Amino acid sequence: MIMLGVDPGFSVSGFGIIKKNDQKLSILDYGALPLSSKASLSERVGIFHDFFSRKISAGSVTALALETPFLGKNAQNFLKLGYLRGIFYLLADQHSLPLYEFSPGEIKRAVTGFGRADKQQVARVLMRLFRGLEMPDKLDTTDALAVTLCGIWKVSEKRF
Amino acid sequence: MIMLGVDPGFSVSGFGIIKKNDQKLSILDYGALPLSSKASLSERVGIFHDFFSRKISAGSVTALALETPFLGKNAQNFLKLGYLRGIFYLLADQHSLPLYEFSPGEIKRAVTGFGRADKQQVARVLMRLFRGLEMPDKLDTTDALAVTLCGIWKVSEKRF
Repeated sequence: MIMLGVDPGFSVSGFGIIKKNDQKLSILDYGALPLSSKASLSERVGIFHDFFSRKISAGSVTALALETPFLGKNAQNFLKLGYLRGIFYLLADQHSLPLYEFSPGEIKRAVTGFGRADKQQVARVLMRLFRGLEMPDKLDTTDALAVTLCGIWKVSEKRF
Repeated sequence: MIMLGVDPGFSVSGFGIIKKNDQKLSILDYGALPLSSKASLSERVGIFHDFFSRKISAGSVTALALETPFLGKNAQNFLKLGYLRGIFYLLADQHSLPLYEFSPGEIKRAVTGFGRADKQQVARVLMRLFRGLEMPDKLDTTDALAVTLCGIWKVSEKRF
């Protein structure tokens, strides 16, 4: 199983690709896709689509994972977040991959054992699990790796 | 100018394609795309993408129009509506077309002269404008034609 997890956003989208082979987990790729605010919304949506379509093909990804967001203060930003999530659903269809969604609490509980852990705690667990993983400047990347790891575990335990 | 306007929805998406040649308006196509609730979300997103990608190519569409929704009672449905809107933004990028958004009030005012007109009033104006247009069973289609018509008028008057 090779899982791509994404934490989508119109300024930056974190992502992680984790492979599970028997009981061994390895990170194949991780990082962040920045989207310039100078580009139009449709250009940014297009860049997001093409970037992750290439990642899926290049990494032989077999499953996708997303975090289910909750409505924040700004309804229009929440709607726009849906645009990028919609692209991820389209990629699932175009590449014939299952897409799993997990709530923020499920993800934190899966990774740290505590459903209300903060981002730093999540990052520390990830760095203990994956030696050589550098603490990224932005926590979007560790968020995305946490979604990916949660997906790997839940799916291999068939708990979803 | 050939405008495609869509009223997206996960059960049914209304659409209209209107052409403006000098001062003459003509409806090239209109209807509704039903999406089966038996299909997965990603399948429905894929069907929506492919259907409108073909409509854009077949109709030589030169611009796209959407209505800006307001948050309803159900935040998760609002987020999912964003998925289909995101696909429409992707189509704008893939086909290099401008995409215009209008508020419900702008659309009603443009079509009926009254920003709080009801759906039946909008439908009656459309049927007076376009002879031979049959009153569709579902008003999703007239909603979509209203978005399209608003787009045609606003863009040709450069009022957007």
